[in-house]
Parts: sequence; C-alpha cells; structure tokens
Amino acid sequence: MAGLFITLEGGDGAGKSTQAALLETWLRESGSTVTRTREPGGTDLGGEIRTMVLHRRGHIAPRAEALLYAADRAHHVATVVRPALERGEVVLQDRYLDSSVAYQGAGRILDSGEVRRLSLWATEHLLPDLTVLLDLDAVASRSRLDESRTGYDRLESEALDFHTRVRDAFLALAAAEPERFLVVDATRPIDDIATTIRERVGGMLG
Amino acid sequence: MAGLFITLEGGDGAGKSTQAALLETWLRESGSTVTRTREPGGTDLGGEIRTMVLHRRGHIAPRAEALLYAADRAHHVATVVRPALERGEVVLQDRYLDSSVAYQGAGRILDSGEVRRLSLWATEHLLPDLTVLLDLDAVASRSRLDESRTGYDRLESEALDFHTRVRDAFLALAAAEPERFLVVDATRPIDDIATTIRERVGGMLG
Repeated sequence: MAGLFITLEGGDGAGKSTQAALLETWLRESGSTVTRTREPGGTDLGGEIRTMVLHRRGHIAPRAEALLYAADRAHHVATVVRPALERGEVVLQDRYLDSSVAYQGAGRILDSGEVRRLSLWATEHLLPDLTVLLDLDAVASRSRLDESRTGYDRLESEALDFHTRVRDAFLALAAAEPERFLVVDATRPIDDIATTIRERVGGMLG
Repeated sequence: MAGLFITLEGGDGAGKSTQAALLETWLRESGSTVTRTREPGGTDLGGEIRTMVLHRRGHIAPRAEALLYAADRAHHVATVVRPALERGEVVLQDRYLDSSVAYQGAGRILDSGEVRRLSLWATEHLLPDLTVLLDLDAVASRSRLDESRTGYDRLESEALDFHTRVRDAFLALAAAEPERFLVVDATRPIDDIATTIRERVGGMLG
C-alpha cells in the first residue's frame, strides 16, 4: 500500500490529541493528504457498537465485549483506514490495537496474546508503519488530571495500580517491536515532542 | 460439567424446530430439566446485535459481521448455556457453531477454519455433546418451502447452488467428527426421526 499508517498510543492525559493535531497541521503544510481518525467509534457502526456496550444495562461477557470492539475495528479498517491508505494518504489514528492489548491485558481477564490475535484477524494483519507511544507514569498522569490531590484512597490506589499495569504493557509492546514504535517521554515540552515526532515521520515520507 | 449440550443443525425446512419440540417433551417426561434456546439472538444483547446487523443501512465489512455474530455467541454461551449445563440441565439449542462454519464458509468470503476458531475462542471451546444434523438436499428443501415450483431462474439457481454448498459443508463437518454428530435423513417420517434421536439421547442420559 502506498500510504502511511501512524497511530498514537498512551494513557489518558498523555497528550495524544495535542500531538495528533500538531502533526496533522505539519503534514498538510508539507503537502500530504491526511485522514485523521480514532478508535473506538471511528465509523457509524462503531458508534452504534460503542453505545450498545456503554449504555445498556446489565453485564456483558468479557469475550463478547472484546469481540464487539474487534468488530468495530474490523469495520473501521475495512471502510476507512485501508481505503485511505490505498489512495496514498497518511492515516493519523488515535488508539489502535496496542490500546486493546494494553488495557484488556492489564484488566487481567483476557490473555494479551489472544486479544492481539483477535485484532490481527479483524484487520487482516494491518499493523501501523509507526506507533508513537506518549509515555507517562501513572502518578504524573493522575496529577495532570487533578493537580490538587496529594493522596489516594483505596479505590484510587487500585486505579493507580491499573494504570501502572497499562503503562508497563505499552512499554513491553514497544520493546517487542522497536522498529514500529517511537517512545516519547510525555513530560517533555509539547514543542520538543512535536519536533521529535516530525523528524521520525519526515524520514518516512521519503 | 454435569449437563448435556445438544444442538440441532441443518438447512431451513429440515425440521429442526419440530424435532426440538418433540425431544424437549420427551426429555421433560423422562424427568430432565431442559433449557431450550437458539442462535443467533438467544439473549437480549444478541437480539440487539441481530437488529443492528439486519436493519442498518449500508454495508458491514464481512469480518465485522462475523465478529458481531461471535459476540452474540460468546454472550449467549457465558450467560445462558454454561450456567444451565453447570446446573446439570439438558440444553437443547437450534443452531450453533456448525451453522456459522457451514453458512459463512459456503458464502466463500471467509475461511471455514478461521470462522470455527473464532467461535471456539468466543465460547472457550465449548463443543456440543451431540449435534443432530437433519440432512436434506437443496432441491427437497426448496420443494418443501414451495411445493408448486418446477423450474428456477438464474438467481434462484444461484441460491440453490449456495444451499448445496451449505449442505455439503454440514456433511463434511459431520464426517470430521462422527462421534459428535448424528446425521438423520430429514425426508424420513417425523416420528421415525424422533425415535432415532431419542435412542441416541437416551443412551447419553445414563
């Protein structure tokens, strides 16, 4: 395929949207055609699936939930991402399969390898050309979201532990595929991060 | 698990509902507790998924559709079938994974092995103790549904060809797992078929 598929990953508050916007502007000014999208919910069907999962009453079996999100991904890749790549565009996407693996794996219900295989089947093995991981430790992430707090109660500590597992999972994924990943310290100044990302992407545009 | 999981498979018009009803009555009279169910759509979530797939406008990517049906199956097995089996009941189910494999495989878009693996992941490898295949050739099936027709136009012939592939796929599945399957000629009298099924099930109730 002629296009370039770039995904942004990381915890909430790491700056994915900010960096995606800066990169999109730079790419357009450089003459690239950009499709900016996100998961979950990047299509109408995906939005319906998300509504079904989030707003219905009662329990959904964990494998059913994973399959619903995989269905969203399959439809999004088949109808949005692949067509854009085939037109030679740059696809800039907020979250992709690494998020599923990191979050569902950290939730400890499903095996990470199985979640990954499910996504690869759903997408006919479409992996990004580049994945930018905006790395932020859980305490820094928390303090960005709520600057005033100094301590955590039990539930908050569990949440912190969960986010630590998510971060560790992202870092492990990056270590396993160093050529696909660009890991950036998300505590650095916004413009420094943007420059680092541009340098890497610029080298890929050829 | 203590229960007994029985599925009925075959094309439309083969008599699955009739035989399920007769078997259910006989099982209850023999003192068994029976959960009778079906796929797709055996749960509320499954009904919502089915509505989404059937009634929305526009194309759904084939893998997305397969994943949505697998999500329905995952939820149905986790919330209805396994709990009933764990209570020691007989679960009598109209269509299960063999239907997915036969129909989606015959549709020639997805590979049968992949469809099967997806269902096995969704259900944590729950296979029936017994699958009754009511075998009927495509012409007989058609004539049951429409006794008055003598010829087929092009589209109808394609449909006939599709149903022939579905039947062949069911027979191939039965041949691959002869111990799980009971293949019955669906043109035999209803009561004869019911007797054949009872004899097999009776031997399994111990």
